[in-house]
Order: sequence, then C-alpha cells, then structure tokens
Amino acid sequence: MATAWHIRQLTVIGVGLIGGSLARALRRAAVVDQIVGCQPDSAGLVRAQQLGVIDRYATDVASAVAGADLVVLAVPLGALPELFRQLAVAVPPQAVITDVGSAKGSVVSAARQALGERIASFVPGHPIAGTEHSGVEASFAELFANHSVMLTPLPETAAAALQTVQQMWRSTGAQLVQTTVEQHDAALAATSHLPHLLAYTLVDTLGRIDPTAEIFRYAAGGFRDVSRVASSDPVMWRDICLANRAAIQAVLAAYSGRLSALQALIEHEDGAGLQQLFAGAKQLRDRHIVGLKGEE
Amino acid sequence: MATAWHIRQLTVIGVGLIGGSLARALRRAAVVDQIVGCQPDSAGLVRAQQLGVIDRYATDVASAVAGADLVVLAVPLGALPELFRQLAVAVPPQAVITDVGSAKGSVVSAARQALGERIASFVPGHPIAGTEHSGVEASFAELFANHSVMLTPLPETAAAALQTVQQMWRSTGAQLVQTTVEQHDAALAATSHLPHLLAYTLVDTLGRIDPTAEIFRYAAGGFRDVSRVASSDPVMWRDICLANRAAIQAVLAAYSGRLSALQALIEHEDGAGLQQLFAGAKQLRDRHIVGLKGEE
Repeated sequence: MATAWHIRQLTVIGVGLIGGSLARALRRAAVVDQIVGCQPDSAGLVRAQQLGVIDRYATDVASAVAGADLVVLAVPLGALPELFRQLAVAVPPQAVITDVGSAKGSVVSAARQALGERIASFVPGHPIAGTEHSGVEASFAELFANHSVMLTPLPETAAAALQTVQQMWRSTGAQLVQTTVEQHDAALAATSHLPHLLAYTLVDTLGRIDPTAEIFRYAAGGFRDVSRVASSDPVMWRDICLANRAAIQAVLAAYSGRLSALQALIEHEDGAGLQQLFAGAKQLRDRHIVGLKGEE
Repeated sequence: MATAWHIRQLTVIGVGLIGGSLARALRRAAVVDQIVGCQPDSAGLVRAQQLGVIDRYATDVASAVAGADLVVLAVPLGALPELFRQLAVAVPPQAVITDVGSAKGSVVSAARQALGERIASFVPGHPIAGTEHSGVEASFAELFANHSVMLTPLPETAAAALQTVQQMWRSTGAQLVQTTVEQHDAALAATSHLPHLLAYTLVDTLGRIDPTAEIFRYAAGGFRDVSRVASSDPVMWRDICLANRAAIQAVLAAYSGRLSALQALIEHEDGAGLQQLFAGAKQLRDRHIVGLKGEE
C-alpha cells in the first residue's frame, strides 16, 4: 500500500543478535525496501548478507548511512561515543537515529555531546529481549514479538522521530513502554544487570573453589538456570557495567546487604527467619514472574 | 520373571514431588508389588491414591512400615531425626532404609544416633533432580531418568542394603554416583544450595528496592531464569540451610568475597578486569554446563 508506513533505507550499525534480529523482523513485516549493514568486521557482514539479513554493507559509517531514513545503532555501549562523533558529520539531514543500549544515561550524554542540535533526531531505545548467544547467526525475526521495548525520549526529541521509532518497533510485534532515562537505568540495573552479575560471580566462585572444574559434574538444573546468562558476551557486559555504573553500584550494595542478612540468619540457625525470607521471595516471584515471557 | 529383582512392599514416607515421582517410576518399571504411602497429611495421601501413585496409606509410621522390604524417606530434612526415632522401634528386621535428603552429614548423624546397630540397613542417598514445584500433583515418572543419584554408603552399611538401593535407582533410569558424605555436602553446597540462596536473595532484594513490586514489570528472561528456583519450597530450603550449615557458610563466604571483588572492579572502572572476569566465567560455563540435563 502506498500510504502504509515504510522505510526506504534502514542502516543497521552492528549486525549481531539484536541488529540482525531487528533487520529480519522488519524485512518479514515488509516495511523496509533496503537494509544496509555496517560494522568494522567485514566477515560478519558477508555472513549477514549470505543469510539474507542485509542487502548490502559498508565497513565505514559515512558510506553506510548515506541515503538512510533510519539508522539503528546496535553496537556494544563502549563503541557508541565514537560512533556518535562519526554520525555527527556523516548522517543525512532526514535520518532518524535510535539505539538499543542496555543503559541510557551514558548514551544520552554521549549523544548530546557529539550531535549538538541533531540530538532532536535521536530516540534512545532499549528492547528488553535477547539470548545468551551472540552474533548474526543467532539472530531471528521473532526475538522482539510480545517483548517490551523501552523508549526514553528527551525534551529535545522531535515528535516525528519518536513516531518513526515507535512504528519500527511496533512492526516487530514489540510492546512499547515510555519512561525516563533515570527510571530506565535504575529498573534495568535491578532486573537485568544485577542477575547477570550474580550469574557471572557464581560461575567465577565455583571455578575458584575447584580449579579442576570437577565440581561442575554435580551441577543440575538449578545451577544451569541461575548461571545461564553467564554465557553472555563479556564485552557487552563490561560496557554495561561501565555505562550504568552508579545504578549498578546501588543495587549491588543492596544485594550485598541482603546476602549479609541471610548469612546472619544461617549463622544464628534462625529457622523461622530463613523460612520467612524464602516464603516472601517465593510469593513475590510466583505472583509477578511466573509465566513471564522473554529472554535476556 | 521370578528371578528378576523385585520389591514386594515399598513404603514411601513423604509422598511429594520426589517420593511421588519415585513411586511412579518404580511402578512403571514393574519392579514393585505394593506401594504404601505415609505422611501426617491424610488429604495428600488420598490424592496420591487417587492419582494411582500409591496403593494404600497410613498416617502413622508403624502401620506404614509393617511388612516393608524397602522404606524411602522423602520428607523435609528437619523431619528426619524424629522419623529415625520412630523407625528404630517400628521397622521390620528385613527392611532396607534410604533417604533423599539434599544434605548428608546431619542425616547420617541423626540416623546413627537413633538406629544404633540397624544403621547397617540405612543407605544415605540424594537424587540430583527436582523442579521448583512441590507436592504429589507435580510428581512424574521420568523425573530421575538420566539424572545423577548420589549414594554415600557408610563403613557400617551392609552390602546387600547398598545393592537394593542401587537396584531401585537403576530401575528409574538414574545414573549412580558414589561418594563420601563430606564430598557430597561440599559439592552440593556449591552447585545447588548456593544458587538457590542467590536466587531467593535476588527476589528479596528487588522486593525491598521497590515495595510496590512495579519493578518486576521490567523483568525479562535473564531475571526469570536466575530467579526460577526462588519459587522452591521455603520449608525444604530452611531445612537445607540448617542441615548443611557449615558447608553453606563456606560457599557463601567465598561468594561474598568474589562479589566484593566485582564491586571493586566496577568502583575503579576497571574495564579490562571486568572483561577478564566475565570471559573466564563464560568459558567455564560454556565448557562444563551447556547442554547439561536436569532440574533442581
């Protein structure tokens, strides 16, 4: 339909799990004419083209964004500041820019610094979706269906830019949630960054308890599930720790405090206190989490 | 076949997820003539009989174990000391006794104290299987197939008693692992008890960060998986904390130390250190855990 919402050229910078899945979802929804991939690693771009995820590619940002209506930044958080500086000189005037970063405060600050008045075209976003796998080979069109995508528009954000990014995510089947940068970063530190760090620390601890790794032979489903996200990309999680540092420090301090309280209950053989703690947690989880969809 | 291994009467004390699943598995394997259930809660016994999990039941231990060849104790750890005292006077001379407790040191100590010379008939055991659900309704015959069952026979254990319990578990499709009480308790504290306590503490922490529980709306797959076992039975986990206290305190102390190390890396914005920690954990998990079967 000529009147339907449409993207002529989408440029995806960082064609990994998230960027690749977004490209696949938008192609399947038939809302995009041409998808251009961009990243320094040309071997990954060749694979993405062979998989039909992108139509063409460029390893340099200026070539990749030329002619773009919409530019999606799906790179690790640590790569965004330099990318914003390149976009500031290269991005065409009509292009809307959005990102998928798991922390928003540091991204917005880097965008403001590099983009100047073009910040009006930037819509900070974060799809609450993912798996512990990385790379374009792990991407799939259904990744965002029925998952939340958080958008944190700024006072400067142009209404038309926001609408474009909303349309894009709706086309993937995602559900939009609008919030502030600060609320996003505090909520994600607690619900996503904290569990990932606990999982990494669990595997790290067992590796130190038994350097022969024999101990993992006794691991069952509980360990497998609690540790699953410790198979996530180390570079991505390094960048999240640095980008959302203050909020993560706050939740880690809160967690350490509760872990000390648990240790005290065990130390004092306080059966009633232990049961109360476990029953309260079980009740919260059974009420709010059971049946929850999504992977990240 | 008259010569095949066979149990004439199996008495299961505690017909919940584990006791019920064991009864179902042995019935399906056609190695048992009659299954008697026992627990204080008669409503649960009626349901177990209606579901075909047990043939008959008694709420008192003496009636339930009369005539038994094999008695399986599948009650929370805290109920075992009193149960051993009742068995000491009630259990028939030919009966073999085994348990399914997640900690073995305290169980063995209670058994020795109550059973005296009859300790020779007792084979401490622990199936590394389960789900976060409880009760006979959650039981299923396939629970132990391809899962490990740890047996920690004592110097006093009669060879025939050990063989009976080994035969029983093999009939469920389980794989037997023989180890010492001390090795069992240290390994399980690290691989099972620690992840459960981390999950309970995670949900507890978020409930305190946001008493309105609004924050759980932002939770995705990572939180769901890391917290899954926080839906486990609070009484069972209270008892495990008390029964395996020393080994759990040791692993919690090790974990707290590693969590402090992580906090220091974030505090100092040590990107290289963070990446090294995450990459090491990912490598360990990818090598030793991916594809692991089992639920607990």
